[in-house]
Amino acid sequence: MKILDFWFEFASSYSYLAAMRAESLAQEAEIVLRWRPFLLGPIFAAQGWTTSPFNLYPAKGRYMWRDLDRICAARGLALVRPEPFPQNSLLAARLALSVPETLLAPFSRAVYRAEYGEGRSIADKDVLTKIVENLGLAAAALFERAQSEEIKTRLRRQTQEAQDLGVFGAPTFVAPDGELFWGDDRLEPAIAWTRALG
Amino acid sequence: MKILDFWFEFASSYSYLAAMRAESLAQEAEIVLRWRPFLLGPIFAAQGWTTSPFNLYPAKGRYMWRDLDRICAARGLALVRPEPFPQNSLLAARLALSVPETLLAPFSRAVYRAEYGEGRSIADKDVLTKIVENLGLAAAALFERAQSEEIKTRLRRQTQEAQDLGVFGAPTFVAPDGELFWGDDRLEPAIAWTRALG
Repeated sequence: MKILDFWFEFASSYSYLAAMRAESLAQEAEIVLRWRPFLLGPIFAAQGWTTSPFNLYPAKGRYMWRDLDRICAARGLALVRPEPFPQNSLLAARLALSVPETLLAPFSRAVYRAEYGEGRSIADKDVLTKIVENLGLAAAALFERAQSEEIKTRLRRQTQEAQDLGVFGAPTFVAPDGELFWGDDRLEPAIAWTRALG
Repeated sequence: MKILDFWFEFASSYSYLAAMRAESLAQEAEIVLRWRPFLLGPIFAAQGWTTSPFNLYPAKGRYMWRDLDRICAARGLALVRPEPFPQNSLLAARLALSVPETLLAPFSRAVYRAEYGEGRSIADKDVLTKIVENLGLAAAALFERAQSEEIKTRLRRQTQEAQDLGVFGAPTFVAPDGELFWGDDRLEPAIAWTRALG
């Protein structure tokens, strides 16, 4: 089976859109979706941004929220803006690298649902505790693992790998031949591209 | 008939994609497409950019060209990168406001074809002369009109109007109720939205 890498950032609004549909679209196309959490912060910082471009450029930010409203309405997806935006996603990303691999996708969708479906803070340990407990995991041990040097290093390396691949925003899909597709609206082309590879 | 405003910038690569298909999609939906040329330069300058974000952020720029390659290939559209990028589009935009209104769309498509289909310079008076002559217009009189205070002022006002509407990039589609849609990939949603208006 071909593998499509799904690079996502928990703070990213368009990653929410992609996370809620990517798995089922990939499955229909008989493609394995590999969930790759990373941090946009260091990548934005490298190009001189101190926060999300949606905050730096207000007209773009207003448009993004309106665009998201429309798309969520069309897809029957809940949308409650998290405050502040963007959320601090560091702990969620470290937890994502700490849960058993088979639970990475359900964990990630649960984080997005809490954040963008319910407007809850994903920097809040209580919110994250509930999510991991709902997945049947022991929270205390998991949080300890999430703060270990091993996990911190893995997240740094994964973020560096994204940057080396040419990732500059999220979500980004990377096909087995290295072809990049940026944005929830490029999910279908990414799947079609991957499918067509020999 | 409902009117959908099509805000475009001659230097913009994704405006090329939209310009080559927007008219026929609008016609099928029984919507009038109103072509509104404007300049992104002043809008970019207002947010501190001295050139295209595709130049300011190299990873984003590399991606844009690749994305454009793929989309042009899929649509059977020629693509030859103009040098330099972005092109100076001032004269083309002033000419667009100077041609008879019925020729605005064919003129604009001819400019995009020369620029992105053939990689020619649209700052080159010879290139533009050929385009207007092919449309049966008298070049000398048209260039004189394009440099008149009336046209210069109209272009400045039109750019200000775009900015006041919340336009921050091109192409942007604005529905009769003021709803904004940014990007060639939002053309279909813009048409569907406009169609659904009471």
